Amino acid sequence: MLHPEGKLTINLDAVRENYRILRARVKTPCTIAAAVKANAYGLGANEIVGALMQEGCNDFFVAGPEEALTLRRHHKNCNLYVLSGFYQSRAEIYPAHNLIPVLGSFMEIKAYGDLARAQGKALPALLQFNTRMNRMGLGAVETQELLANMDMLEGIDLRGVISHLACADEPDHPMNETQYQVFKDIAEHFPNVPKSLANSSGIFLGEKYHFDMVRPGMALYGLNPTPEHENPMQSVVSLEVPIMRVRIVYEDAVVGYGATYRFDKESLIATVSAGYADGIFRALSNKGAFYWKGIRLPIRGRVSMDLTTVDVSDVPKGERPRPGDYLEILGPHQDADDLAKDAGTIGYEVLTNLGNRYERRYIG
Amino acid sequence: MLHPEGKLTINLDAVRENYRILRARVKTPCTIAAAVKANAYGLGANEIVGALMQEGCNDFFVAGPEEALTLRRHHKNCNLYVLSGFYQSRAEIYPAHNLIPVLGSFMEIKAYGDLARAQGKALPALLQFNTRMNRMGLGAVETQELLANMDMLEGIDLRGVISHLACADEPDHPMNETQYQVFKDIAEHFPNVPKSLANSSGIFLGEKYHFDMVRPGMALYGLNPTPEHENPMQSVVSLEVPIMRVRIVYEDAVVGYGATYRFDKESLIATVSAGYADGIFRALSNKGAFYWKGIRLPIRGRVSMDLTTVDVSDVPKGERPRPGDYLEILGPHQDADDLAKDAGTIGYEVLTNLGNRYERRYIG
Repeated sequence: MLHPEGKLTINLDAVRENYRILRARVKTPCTIAAAVKANAYGLGANEIVGALMQEGCNDFFVAGPEEALTLRRHHKNCNLYVLSGFYQSRAEIYPAHNLIPVLGSFMEIKAYGDLARAQGKALPALLQFNTRMNRMGLGAVETQELLANMDMLEGIDLRGVISHLACADEPDHPMNETQYQVFKDIAEHFPNVPKSLANSSGIFLGEKYHFDMVRPGMALYGLNPTPEHENPMQSVVSLEVPIMRVRIVYEDAVVGYGATYRFDKESLIATVSAGYADGIFRALSNKGAFYWKGIRLPIRGRVSMDLTTVDVSDVPKGERPRPGDYLEILGPHQDADDLAKDAGTIGYEVLTNLGNRYERRYIG
Repeated sequence: MLHPEGKLTINLDAVRENYRILRARVKTPCTIAAAVKANAYGLGANEIVGALMQEGCNDFFVAGPEEALTLRRHHKNCNLYVLSGFYQSRAEIYPAHNLIPVLGSFMEIKAYGDLARAQGKALPALLQFNTRMNRMGLGAVETQELLANMDMLEGIDLRGVISHLACADEPDHPMNETQYQVFKDIAEHFPNVPKSLANSSGIFLGEKYHFDMVRPGMALYGLNPTPEHENPMQSVVSLEVPIMRVRIVYEDAVVGYGATYRFDKESLIATVSAGYADGIFRALSNKGAFYWKGIRLPIRGRVSMDLTTVDVSDVPKGERPRPGDYLEILGPHQDADDLAKDAGTIGYEVLTNLGNRYERRYIG
């Protein structure tokens, strides 16, 4: 029986188990906040937040105010931190929905303080400092100015000071110690305020990086926060896609756009109903593979928008897959990090690109 | 004033103009059917179909039955062809919603014929032949068997025979003539049935490839169907993303994950609120660029999930962009094909990956 769509399964039990694995790693006391931006790295923020709240996780980081609003509709009682900060054009939604901006510029600090004064009450915020990653947060000059004029923060209920590690997945990278020192020096000026520096990989750099709050994302979703070692996390995502057609091709036959693959012998190939519009990167053309009963089926020819063709010749005759059978794209034999390697990217990009034509199922 | 989201603008006037450009190219009479699979290559199938129907386009190709159902909800009177074919598990939806499967295997032909006989009326279908692309359609052996036993098609109201070109964007590729000949030889056995071979690029191979129906996709959406020549199509998509932060960095500063870019002089950089979760491929790290007033702003460091950092140092002092200003990612200075080149892929993959965190606007 043919089936049109792939099945994307997200194991919420595994997400909770990953939270517990991190909990056991992280010093006590220390808050574990979850990064659920970009729809929880493509896995479904609403479901992920629900699962993590069952474990006692109560703090969540999103990218922008729209993501926060979407989550707030379903989850009333957690802390939602908006990493992109405070947008004056949507000022009213922060207090109205109890959203906590992560402030990283004088412009925002001023505007948010003004809002607090206009409302006649202190409003909660985190403060982000740039510690040489040079992406977000107050720079060195601004930081000195702020430290010399702390009354700039008047009206702001400062719930934490944070920064972000650039190279935590490379434990020997000198940036880690540099960022730690810069952050620690700044943080000391805020003695009674919670401090946070570590992302998933930062947790595995050791306790001195944990401070008062860690902010894992990828590790919760089963990606490997320690790429130089075996993955300590549980696998969360599986993706299986059905075969549409199986055909014999002969020596010198070609396949796909541009006829980029030529068979050097008679082969059996299967066309599968997923392509780059579903997150099977075109970079996997003639490089990546899917799996059937643990056997690697190399992608032949270019990945196209809705279809990918794999070679099933290596499967013993009696066990060959047929139309309607599901091949493993992500599962026990290949995880998002593996697929990413073949595509020249990282597991994060695999997850955030998982398409919306799959049948999406949550288990656990 | 800061804005959180990028603005993705889809110009339906340009889509209609592209339809007219193709109309003028295609021989008369010849039906122009539009490929609107994968949500019209990411641009919004519902809106694209509505725009094209205003021009008299009445035939649309989608990938799977779910896409067809979504479109049928809004567009009652057009022909919707399902490229992935007939799924017995959803048999009832084809006649109920007047969906036309593209049959490409004996299994489907048999099952669809059975359905027709059970319903006591002929049911419409296209028939797809594999002409050496080896992805979809009846293979050579099956084709011979069918031609010798045409009563296999009993109960099927055959609305067309089709195949698909693998190398139409390379006019000198020998596959084009090969596929033409193979298709023509098969098609001659169906004298009174409409025939279709050409996709966007196939239209530009010349009239002999047009047969009775052409099936453009990418050309309607402004991608270049003639990559060896100037793009004859109108630009459809523009994408502008706001700056969140601008900062000075000094000699030897680094930026982003992995600290992969080191500045060799004092520079001014801008952090922009879009990353690989929004379709700004991570492969653009230290390669691609955004634009401001026509000036190229190279991406510095790795593209991250929600953020990208560009160098604005080359902009003359009085004209430099500030937080809240929008940079051009796709627009007059850089189209999807250009961005794709920097990322090592094709414009199609840029379009199908356009993220869902943008504010999406349709004009025209």
